[in-house]
Amino acid sequence: MSEVRTKALLAKSASRSLADLSSVERDRALELMADALIRNADRIMKENRKDMVKAEENGKPQAFLDRLMLNETRIGDMAKGLMSIRQLSDPIGETVAAWVRPNGLEIAQIRVPLGVVGMIYESRPNVTADAVGLCIKTANAVVLRGGSDAINSNRIIADVLAQASLEAGIPEGAIQLIHDTDRSSAVELMTLSGIIDVLIPRGGGGLIRSVVENAKVPVIETGEGNCHVYIDDDCDPQMAIDIVVNAKTSRPGVCNAAEKLLISRKSAPRLLPDLVRALKEKGVELRGCPEAMRLANGIMPAAEDDWGREYLSLIMAIKVVDGINEAIEHINRYGSGHSEAIVTSSYFNSRKFTSQVDAAAVYVNASTRFTDGYEYGFGAEIGISTQKFHARGPMGLKALTTIKYVVHGNGQTR
Amino acid sequence: MSEVRTKALLAKSASRSLADLSSVERDRALELMADALIRNADRIMKENRKDMVKAEENGKPQAFLDRLMLNETRIGDMAKGLMSIRQLSDPIGETVAAWVRPNGLEIAQIRVPLGVVGMIYESRPNVTADAVGLCIKTANAVVLRGGSDAINSNRIIADVLAQASLEAGIPEGAIQLIHDTDRSSAVELMTLSGIIDVLIPRGGGGLIRSVVENAKVPVIETGEGNCHVYIDDDCDPQMAIDIVVNAKTSRPGVCNAAEKLLISRKSAPRLLPDLVRALKEKGVELRGCPEAMRLANGIMPAAEDDWGREYLSLIMAIKVVDGINEAIEHINRYGSGHSEAIVTSSYFNSRKFTSQVDAAAVYVNASTRFTDGYEYGFGAEIGISTQKFHARGPMGLKALTTIKYVVHGNGQTR
Repeated sequence: MSEVRTKALLAKSASRSLADLSSVERDRALELMADALIRNADRIMKENRKDMVKAEENGKPQAFLDRLMLNETRIGDMAKGLMSIRQLSDPIGETVAAWVRPNGLEIAQIRVPLGVVGMIYESRPNVTADAVGLCIKTANAVVLRGGSDAINSNRIIADVLAQASLEAGIPEGAIQLIHDTDRSSAVELMTLSGIIDVLIPRGGGGLIRSVVENAKVPVIETGEGNCHVYIDDDCDPQMAIDIVVNAKTSRPGVCNAAEKLLISRKSAPRLLPDLVRALKEKGVELRGCPEAMRLANGIMPAAEDDWGREYLSLIMAIKVVDGINEAIEHINRYGSGHSEAIVTSSYFNSRKFTSQVDAAAVYVNASTRFTDGYEYGFGAEIGISTQKFHARGPMGLKALTTIKYVVHGNGQTR
Repeated sequence: MSEVRTKALLAKSASRSLADLSSVERDRALELMADALIRNADRIMKENRKDMVKAEENGKPQAFLDRLMLNETRIGDMAKGLMSIRQLSDPIGETVAAWVRPNGLEIAQIRVPLGVVGMIYESRPNVTADAVGLCIKTANAVVLRGGSDAINSNRIIADVLAQASLEAGIPEGAIQLIHDTDRSSAVELMTLSGIIDVLIPRGGGGLIRSVVENAKVPVIETGEGNCHVYIDDDCDPQMAIDIVVNAKTSRPGVCNAAEKLLISRKSAPRLLPDLVRALKEKGVELRGCPEAMRLANGIMPAAEDDWGREYLSLIMAIKVVDGINEAIEHINRYGSGHSEAIVTSSYFNSRKFTSQVDAAAVYVNASTRFTDGYEYGFGAEIGISTQKFHARGPMGLKALTTIKYVVHGNGQTR
């Protein structure tokens, strides 16, 4: 049997008894795993050095090397991450709803683990610890498939965590890392229906599309954000500038950053020059429709394919629209269903926008940058789902759970 | 463009404005659709006659003809079904949760339609009306792909419903039926990612497996039920007999009927002869392990492949097990994750069973036959999900919804 199938089956088998451990036992495992990372920091850095040397030899860019590199501080942060997951309240066993039927049957909807979570990710080795922590907290077994660039780092981290978890009574096999980093091992993982209960890709658009395209198991699609800010006819001008600048520039490389500015024809002559000036001061390259180019200086022409693109950098495209209806139409046509914002003083337009825009998160007078598990108060984040199925928007621990109906009777028949 | 893609895109486009209709408007549509079925009963029966003639010519069995046949009573029942969906409370727009963050952001989780629901089903034309009713109630557009045997019936029913819905202001295109009943049209529907938001197959195991295997869009797997009743060491003997007989014989052709009886080695000598007698009186064919065959008369030997089978008929296989641990192990190995029951007087064993059995519905001292949207009090049933993702167990209207985060601020930036 292949490595992927063997390890996934071991995880499946471990998931049965894992689901039966108490919260106390799973939290104890998170503590022991955090301790073990710190105690084994030297071994982890030594293995990480191998990955770094190979990446340097392969001429990888500095930003790549920076994501790959582990030092004592970063290993400490991984341990702190596990401890902060430990602090969260346990979703498993929660009674979501319960009721009694006229015939006396007591029906309860109980939150239970999904079973086996698969994670496919790229070069950052800290994802290994984070994914293990989230899965053990929610009593799920986990099968990790990291990228080839970080394989030595991922192997030692997974080994250290698995070893430490055993001491806390986590069943052997619950934490699995696929050593084969060939593309075929990722594809095999995507096809294990009946074994992998959910697959979460974490990484760039190419990885996510490949998983969505090839998977035969349930997938949570995360990440792509072509987010818009729409400036309505009536609005507070300073608020408009603050929100657009924040949404575009506070962290341009993340999925909840704004990529597009839509502005109503009524507001554009008054606001666009100041908006453009504020964005240019932050170093943003601007592209726009002909009308935007006429109203402010320093805007390059936008091409049709700009409207659907996620730049993930200091670029923003600007379009002047008739008003709220064209804005909503444009967003529903070109947006990725992630985060969309309106800046408005109009009661009716705020309601129209939140009701008609089809996205995971819709904002009135606030920055798109708030779409985040921590900002929403979930205390952890599995990712941000851009699909509508199972989970949508920032995902906390509950995204790794399902429900079970538990029905108590005293002999009822039908 | 193909018929399937064209119609799915029309449905997608209609789904945007459909989501914005009020509950009153959608309920009005259900009333008008119910009226229209009654008014057009003659036209529907005429078209149904064509399907019946073809089925008779093709030598279809009587049970098949009975499922296909429509008369005034059955058309009246379809109309009544729409009116009972109308009576249900509207899940759309519900605030699932709402909270305020320290920075003043008001975050609300709002229930919204999924968008476009695809249904692939077989010969029963009443599914057409039922599916349309459930989708319009939840403000979803619907793309129907029924079987070739009922194509004339399905076309007239879908036409009548679509026409009536327009009068209530449902956007044109929201109700689509694929006329092409070739296998390729079903396969094409399964691959329309980004257009079809969820696909629900309703029919036999072959159809469901083909959809799960081929779909590139989210699927809700329904139906297969290899359900067990386990008789524990200590239990009320009459309750054990009542539950087993009810679970097996009250409606043997449905997915929540029991297919297997597990009995503890301690209870078997005392209870098995009476159990076998009661089942045989109801005409049940019994197969069993060698130990069961020694303890009672009239049991045929079971083959290994019996333990995983869903008979959907008056057959039951019996296995004597060591006790609760072997029962749980057997169920988790051979069960389909549908409905599982224990008959016990033991507090600890009842808890162990509900906690360790991995199924959508787990029963203590009640028949598996209760796994049903109506029996659970949902007022409607889309199907019974045997997957863990998005929906599990009997599905009411909520399974056709997702959530959207609506965030109100007063200028917050991050």
